[in-house]
This record gives sequence, structure tokens and C-alpha cells, in this order.
Amino acid sequence: MNPRAVVIATGDELVRGERLETNGFFLARELFHAGFTLVRAVIVGDALDPLAEEVRRALPDADLVCISGGLGPTDDDLTRGAVAAALGVAVREDAAAAALVRRSLEARGRPYTPLQARQALLPDGCALVPNPTGTAPGFWCRRGRALLVALPGVPGELEAMWRGPVARVLAAECPERAPPGWKILRCFGLGESEVQRRVAAVCPEARPGEIGMCAEAWAVAVYLAGRYAACARDVRAALEPNVFGEDDDTLATVLVQALVRRGLTCAVAESLTGGGLGYALTSVPGASEVFRGGTIAYAEAEKVALGVSPEILAAHGAVSAATAEALAAAARRRHEAALGLATTGYAGPSGGTGADPAGTVYIAAATAAGCRVRRVWAAGGRAAVRQVAINYALAMGLGAVEEGFGLQPGM
Amino acid sequence: MNPRAVVIATGDELVRGERLETNGFFLARELFHAGFTLVRAVIVGDALDPLAEEVRRALPDADLVCISGGLGPTDDDLTRGAVAAALGVAVREDAAAAALVRRSLEARGRPYTPLQARQALLPDGCALVPNPTGTAPGFWCRRGRALLVALPGVPGELEAMWRGPVARVLAAECPERAPPGWKILRCFGLGESEVQRRVAAVCPEARPGEIGMCAEAWAVAVYLAGRYAACARDVRAALEPNVFGEDDDTLATVLVQALVRRGLTCAVAESLTGGGLGYALTSVPGASEVFRGGTIAYAEAEKVALGVSPEILAAHGAVSAATAEALAAAARRRHEAALGLATTGYAGPSGGTGADPAGTVYIAAATAAGCRVRRVWAAGGRAAVRQVAINYALAMGLGAVEEGFGLQPGM
Repeated sequence: MNPRAVVIATGDELVRGERLETNGFFLARELFHAGFTLVRAVIVGDALDPLAEEVRRALPDADLVCISGGLGPTDDDLTRGAVAAALGVAVREDAAAAALVRRSLEARGRPYTPLQARQALLPDGCALVPNPTGTAPGFWCRRGRALLVALPGVPGELEAMWRGPVARVLAAECPERAPPGWKILRCFGLGESEVQRRVAAVCPEARPGEIGMCAEAWAVAVYLAGRYAACARDVRAALEPNVFGEDDDTLATVLVQALVRRGLTCAVAESLTGGGLGYALTSVPGASEVFRGGTIAYAEAEKVALGVSPEILAAHGAVSAATAEALAAAARRRHEAALGLATTGYAGPSGGTGADPAGTVYIAAATAAGCRVRRVWAAGGRAAVRQVAINYALAMGLGAVEEGFGLQPGM
Repeated sequence: MNPRAVVIATGDELVRGERLETNGFFLARELFHAGFTLVRAVIVGDALDPLAEEVRRALPDADLVCISGGLGPTDDDLTRGAVAAALGVAVREDAAAAALVRRSLEARGRPYTPLQARQALLPDGCALVPNPTGTAPGFWCRRGRALLVALPGVPGELEAMWRGPVARVLAAECPERAPPGWKILRCFGLGESEVQRRVAAVCPEARPGEIGMCAEAWAVAVYLAGRYAACARDVRAALEPNVFGEDDDTLATVLVQALVRRGLTCAVAESLTGGGLGYALTSVPGASEVFRGGTIAYAEAEKVALGVSPEILAAHGAVSAATAEALAAAARRRHEAALGLATTGYAGPSGGTGADPAGTVYIAAATAAGCRVRRVWAAGGRAAVRQVAINYALAMGLGAVEEGFGLQPGM
């Protein structure tokens, strides 16, 4: 069994929802890949007793307790005192910590005041974890089976310390780890319950935790852990032709790679998504090799200027299969690309018709071989509808250029 | 004293660091504004016992326990069973829940299978919380002093349910709350430490927790709590002319509103941001009133086709002040808009020159009165650089159309 980890983040700005806690996300990923099981991640405010209670609760049952935040010099930095209280020890000035704090302040041209000197206090029995990029040092100690590590809450400082000094402590103090066998399959165009049904047919014995599933804007990720990582090929076969990638692949990276591989270019014509499809494509480093550009044809006159005929708009409306097709064809033509992708629709909250209510989206993909168009309806409000349209357009683009990737009829 | 809340999020994808948990962030903010004190936010995996233990731990000491995730139809959706175990009751099919699940599946053209029917199971004694945008319903119950609410983990669904049916339950069941006096000022174009310095000069007595600050892609939010909410006017004066909004304002909403108010239209020409600027503008409901469209001029030939002269590109390069100006002017002309916004730059990781390394961005805003262009450099990698460019373009657009909003020289 993997060693068990607990992460504790402290900060009033976190419990008031002023700042999104991301250290736990970073640590969760790092811990997973380092062979730990994260049993719990907790956020508490800047208050001594609740923080000490979380530490006390975690120690007997964890192999690693990692605390982020509360190590600065101000009154709301309480991690030193809370850990000391949980361990039943006092805090004392650590000479090495004092020297480091003094040096890092000097480098910034700032004085070593009594306030700053608080950062050199450590719970008795704890050792310094140097902070290469900031002022506040961290600390660590062993208590029974648990290793306790306290790091500052500034993400860049925490990450640098985790990858440097903490990694060395873990290697020395907690060497018995088996980073997981693990495979992620990513598919698009199948509902989550349909994916579940097909996976269950291949892996009928799987217990919760062995196979996980995560759906976002109609892309479903299937996580195969432990013995099931070896079944990835069979699971993949059961989900074809809807599997677009594995592990860290996204629809955008896979489409860009497919275009690069085939020496093809692409362009977009966006109404509904207002540029989001181009933004997704250009989030991929190296997209400039294949992405030529596009037109955000938001107003009706912009669609006409791009090359959608006024007759089509008059006969079918801006939100229609015919307009989506005309947009995709115009994207190819105007931007001289092999693949043209287009979106139009009603993002909501207002807009829509009886036949095409808010959430209705038309997506088209045009190539030299012709144009395909799909109508879909997505729930969840403006942001969700637009994200589904972006993903759907990327998937249709992939279907148009990549042999073997296909969208299920009816999705 | 405020009523106390505990938030519990469940998901293997959360403890493995595959997905950033954001529901806790949303709920923390909502709870704060609703007059609750969030004492703890916990993330646990998809496992029955740890989830049930968190619920058991929270119930005696909280006025509100809010669970997110684990309500779908699949084997790793365990919230119904864990809550039932914590409450010491069985799960049973709820007729109202079954009818809702069936109806929502029908609307999607999908069958009501035994797997889907799991979503109609509720712990005995719990009442349905309808899900207006998705399939999985939530539930709630009262246990002693605590109100327990379970909502699906899909953020859009959770948010819609929180603002609709859950708000009604809270109003009826937990009416004794005193939402805090609270004001948020939002500024752009000042560094976080400069904002801190100016705020401290106005509010020298502020204690930790009374004034908070949060910076994201160069926009800084200043949170004034309690007695300091009344000082918002003075703090605002100290931050002018860089304050663009308050409370829930974003750069995009404020720019769209300013354009609407003045009867102006806008358009974009995007290289670096690849459509992200248009995407940000069109995220605002009603943007179609003022946003005409734009061109994603990613490839060099696309910039020429849009109207940037080959001489400018040859003399200055695609990443230059002259090209940014030419793009902004072309956006106005091509898309017949009053305001043209443009971005060009090196997003990284590769690209850049000695004088303009990766992270260098040029942003231009053109109106009938002329064109302004700025060069900025942003750290943090491709996504961060592009987000800074989007925010900067929105702020320059605002500066161009709104009397009184200005960017500090040197930012």
C-alpha cells in the first residue's frame, strides 16, 4: 500500500474565497506521481487552534503531513505556533534560519527587524527547509511514522522548495514508494454513462478507485489504475472510434499534432465562441506551424463580409446548419487553410427560438473533401455552452483530418 | 457569532491532482457573503469511509455542511451512501427525484437505465434539490443544529443549484445571519506592492483580515472588510485613475458596459492571443450589442491580408509597436468599429529576441482620435503571458473610451 499523505493549507483569504487555493492541487499531483496516496486536503483559516487540531488529527495516521502557508512575519502567520502546540513543544530561534532570513533580507536591501526575526523561530526539534526564492524558511521533522513538512504559501516558493530541499528529505526519509502504474484514456462524443457501461463490460471486476472517470464539456477521461493500466488496450478498443488521446493529451494538442503530421493548415470562423476556438488552438506551443488565423464573425454583417451569402442568412438564420457550413467554407477560403472550423449558436442566457433554444449550437468542419455539420444542445449556461462548442469543433476537426477518430452518431 | 460552515469535496481526480477543485472556492466566497464562517474545506477521494467520516466529523460542530461531487450514476459516485452511513439511515428511491432524472434524460434523448436510476436514490429523510441544468439531483436535510446539503461536482450545475434552490432552503432554514460589510475595489496597471503601499497610507490601522488583496494577471482586487468597507471612497481615491470597477466587475464587463453607454462598437485583431481577447469580450452576456467581431491574424500572411503593410512587417517585425498599431487600425477599418484592440507578442516558451524576449507583448488601442500602443513584459509562461495581454488590451480599451480611467505610466 502507498504511504499516506495529508495536505493542510492555511489562510483567511482562502476560507473567505478571496484566493483560489492552488498549492493543494500542485501537491496532489506531485504526491500522486511520487507514489503517495493523498487521503485528505484541508483548508483552514488563520487561527491557531483549528490549525493545531488538523495537525494533531493527521499525525497518527499519515506518513507525510504537508502544511502550506502561515510562515511569514505577520500576526496572522501561525503555522510555527500551531505545529509546536500539536507536537507539544516550544518554539525557539534557529540559528541557521536566522542567518538565512537575515541574508535574504539583506539581498533585498531590507532590515532584519524583530518582526522579520519571527521567521527564524522553529518548533523545537524541527529542522530548517531553506527557501531559495523568498524570505520565510520552511521546516520539517519526524514524529512517529509521520514526516511533517511546513512550507510557505506563496506558490512559486512552495514549488521551488518542494522540488529542491523537500525532495531530498523525502528521498532520505521516505524511500519506500512505488509510483503508480497508471493510464488515462481520453474520449469525446460518448456520454459518461455510456463510457462507464463499455468500460464495465471490459473490466467487470473493477472496484471503486481502480477505474475513475471525469467528464468536462463532453470530453470524458477514463483513469485506469494499478492492474487495470495493463488493460488500456482493451478498454480503448471498447471506446473506439471516440478515443482522441491518452494521459496529458487535450483535444487541442491532438488536433495540432495531427495537422502537423499531415502537413495541413487550419483556420476558424467563430460566431458563438467569439475567438475561444482560436484561443484553444493557439494555447498549444507550436500551433503557429499549422494555425493560420481566423475570423470572429460575431455581428451578422461580419458573417456577410466573410463570405456567408445574405440569402443563406435570410433563409436559415445566423444560427443554422447552413450558416455553420458557409462559415467553415469561408474560413478555409479567406484564410487559405486546408481545414476550416466554424461555430454558431445561442450561448444564452437570452436568445434562441422554439426549435433552437438557448444552448443550441451548430458546428461545422470543412475540408477539400467536403463539409460536415452537427447540431448539439448543451446545458449549463453561457460558459458551459461555449466550452462544449469549442471541444466539439476540435473533435470534428480531428475527425476530419485523422483516420480512425470518429464521433458517435447521435451525440 | 456567524454560523459555521464546513465544505467537503469528493473526487479521486481531485486528490490525484488531475483537476483543480474550484467548487470550494466558489462556496467559500458565497458563504462569506451570506454571513457564514467557513471553518474548514476538505477534499477527499471517492471512497465511502473517509467521506462518511468527514461528514460525521462536521455534523456536531457546524451549522451548514455542504458536500460537492459524487452524485453521478457511476460506481465512484458515493456521496449518497456516505451521507446515509454518517446519518445512520438507508438510501431509498425518491419518487420526485426519479421523475426529475427521467425527465432530464428524456430532454437529452437518453434512456432511463438502472444505472441512471441510481441518481434518484436519496438517504432516508433527505429532500430533493432539483438540478436545473444537469441530470444528477442534489439533496438536503437537517440533523440537529446542522443543515446538510449535497450538490453535484460539475461547477455550472453546483453554482446554479446554490443560487436557486439552495438559497431558498438557506433563507428558510438558516435565516439568522449577518452578512459582513464588504467592498471590493478592482484596479489595473499598478503593482500589488504599490497598491498595498497606497492602501496602507489611507488605512494605517488595518489589522490582518480587515484588508485583503489578490492579484491575477495584473488586475489587483482590494477587499475592504468590516469598518473598512466604509473607507472605500478614500481607498478608491488613492488608487485612481487605475480603478476600473467594484465587487463583481471584470475588465470585460466594464468595457462592454462603457461601450454600450457611449453607443460605441469594438473589434479586435489578435496575433498573440489567438482569439482570447474576443472570447473574453463575448463572455459578457449582451456583448453582441457592441462587439462586431475580429480577425485572428496569426500567420504573417494573415496580418498582411488584414491590412498591415508588408513594409511595416519587414522594417519592424511582427512583434513590434508598429505592427500592433497597424493591427488595431486594421481591426477598426475591416470590422467597421469605433474601437480597435490588437495584441502581438512572444507567448513562449520559444520565440523572442534579445531585445524582446519570450513574454514580450505589444498591445494597441485605436479610436477615431488616434492610436495608443504599449510594450509590456510578463513572466509565468505561455498561459500567463496571454492572459496579461488580454487584460491589458481590455484595460487600454477602457482607457480609450472611458473618461477618468487611466493606466499608470511605466506599467
